[in-house]
Amino acid sequence: MKVEILKENLKNGLNIVEKIVGKNLSLPILDNVLINTEDSFLSLSSTDLETAIKLWILTKIIKKGKVVVPAKFLSNFVSLLPNEKIILEEKKQGVYVECKNFKTQIQGFNPEEFPLLPEFKDFEFLEIDNEMLCQGLSQIVDIASPSQSRPEISGVYFVFSKNLIKIVATDSFRLAEKSITLESPVKKDVSFILPQKPAREIINILGGKGGKVKIYFSPNQTMFELPMKEAQHPQVQIISRLIEGEYPNYEEIIPKKFKTHIIVKRDEFLSQVKTASLFSGKINEIKVNVSEKEVQVSAQDPDIGESQSNIPAKIEGEPVEVSFNHKFLIDGLQNIKSSEVMFDLSGREGPCVLKPVGDASYIYVVMPIKAT
Amino acid sequence: MKVEILKENLKNGLNIVEKIVGKNLSLPILDNVLINTEDSFLSLSSTDLETAIKLWILTKIIKKGKVVVPAKFLSNFVSLLPNEKIILEEKKQGVYVECKNFKTQIQGFNPEEFPLLPEFKDFEFLEIDNEMLCQGLSQIVDIASPSQSRPEISGVYFVFSKNLIKIVATDSFRLAEKSITLESPVKKDVSFILPQKPAREIINILGGKGGKVKIYFSPNQTMFELPMKEAQHPQVQIISRLIEGEYPNYEEIIPKKFKTHIIVKRDEFLSQVKTASLFSGKINEIKVNVSEKEVQVSAQDPDIGESQSNIPAKIEGEPVEVSFNHKFLIDGLQNIKSSEVMFDLSGREGPCVLKPVGDASYIYVVMPIKAT
Repeated sequence: MKVEILKENLKNGLNIVEKIVGKNLSLPILDNVLINTEDSFLSLSSTDLETAIKLWILTKIIKKGKVVVPAKFLSNFVSLLPNEKIILEEKKQGVYVECKNFKTQIQGFNPEEFPLLPEFKDFEFLEIDNEMLCQGLSQIVDIASPSQSRPEISGVYFVFSKNLIKIVATDSFRLAEKSITLESPVKKDVSFILPQKPAREIINILGGKGGKVKIYFSPNQTMFELPMKEAQHPQVQIISRLIEGEYPNYEEIIPKKFKTHIIVKRDEFLSQVKTASLFSGKINEIKVNVSEKEVQVSAQDPDIGESQSNIPAKIEGEPVEVSFNHKFLIDGLQNIKSSEVMFDLSGREGPCVLKPVGDASYIYVVMPIKAT
Repeated sequence: MKVEILKENLKNGLNIVEKIVGKNLSLPILDNVLINTEDSFLSLSSTDLETAIKLWILTKIIKKGKVVVPAKFLSNFVSLLPNEKIILEEKKQGVYVECKNFKTQIQGFNPEEFPLLPEFKDFEFLEIDNEMLCQGLSQIVDIASPSQSRPEISGVYFVFSKNLIKIVATDSFRLAEKSITLESPVKKDVSFILPQKPAREIINILGGKGGKVKIYFSPNQTMFELPMKEAQHPQVQIISRLIEGEYPNYEEIIPKKFKTHIIVKRDEFLSQVKTASLFSGKINEIKVNVSEKEVQVSAQDPDIGESQSNIPAKIEGEPVEVSFNHKFLIDGLQNIKSSEVMFDLSGREGPCVLKPVGDASYIYVVMPIKAT
């Protein structure tokens, strides 16, 4: 292999594929990037055996071939080079790098030992707006729980039905659902559970890059692919295994009727919950007290002190006092971007719902702390 | 105590005094801030028994008094409050805080248990430009070594002589000296060793605030005081104990004659040393090879690979190859801000000196790795 590539393009590509590379002591080959020539492109691939990332950079190919070298090392090294053309050349089971007045040999591995990535040629796919996908995923992904006993809720649930994708996550204390409209309806209803790590990488890697994402899937794997837009945004594939198992019938959990209905300013409510959280003690408990005229947020801990604040609100229904884990309320409020938030309560112990005012696509269900 | 204070002013003050507050399990009173009324000012004080910080904020005093409350907790809490007037009131051995629609009680400690801070009234002092002090200290402070066996080199050495302050630090592998001219000469030559932590706090707290710093000292303590400039920059005092012992006669270590004299571009040389450092292996060794025409930077490690680069230079004297710990060269080059750097070498094993071109106030001495 011998190629000529711009430093910036190689650096951008390495910054993406190195994201899933860690210190893998038992399988050191996984700490590497596979660099391969494919037609007029240089492909970079990395995998941790659960998630894989592959991308293509338009490059001047002088001689075909492939090399496998430490991904983070190469990335650190390339980022220190001057902004010039780089020559990459296969040499002594490694890569020789020449750039302006730098001459460097980096030791690598046998490319035949690098795991094969799954291919999705001729598979069916769906298309979705990239920014809507990434923004929706970011409102959901942190809710999933790394549960050993219930692996099915450790991922993000994707449900495709007619012209709608629903993305869902829960940790059994709260649940978030985001709906995104598709431009054309799916041929057949389908669903899968994506692990949390690749869901986060989709946001990190594809977010802010515009365009449309193609989602491919087989019974146990999926691929999110963003086509090339320009040289700085190469074609990227994020491939992941799927989580086996049946996702819980989550729609049953979302309450349909409420006893108390509130609308408050989101920023002010969030800052009051955060302030009360400082006084919430070891069980993270804060109280939300709804009277006829206003909402009061309070917390107390004998060692720390007590705090109380109130916020004007539009209130309908019964007065009630409900206790929450402040973290769960803060997460829900932070996932909502509208200036006003609807907060629906079902008595002291029933599930509550947070929703952005003027946006029916997002719903956040949270269970109160049970009164003792 | 009862005072009325703007949220921003209280927050700024707490952000400063909380810097030296940690989790002190054996003496929990040290995790607190002492809030006291003094004339028209509210004073905030914190101490870890080695360093103390005190500052004064212009405040509407309604009733005199003092309280002691957890510093980081109060700082976190105040930063969440709306940008409005805050009422602070002594209540139930703690402080009651009212701000817009927030009502809060924070538990505190008995103010009589808070350690007394040393006072420097009627002491002699020197005056020095604040920015020159902070900038000079930042070129020195990280070189000091937290040595248990030689506590005297664990701090920063200040020498006041005639109209010059010299600030010095060493870890026995390298040494840095910065000279700052005083506007008026000192009456009597004097020197002291300031611990590294308060030296860092001087940079953090006083840096960027302009003005002139007054330096007070007694045989075992010192105080750096920056007067109030405006409400946002209150008068601040940083008080520290001094390190006992005799600082080594460091001027002997600075070589006066060299065999090889180089001038190179600082950024390019730094980036070449950083690149080579990736290949330097466990002992951090990189080689600098000076021929008649150019300087070559190289490193190799059989497991990683090898790197070599060259940089044009003005060279006088003997060709030589010297090995360095890359960290020590990088630190020195990063402390130098000029576009060109002088690099003077004394053979394979003698001390080398880095200096900014066109600035005689800074000198960085570094020992090579001994040839084996």
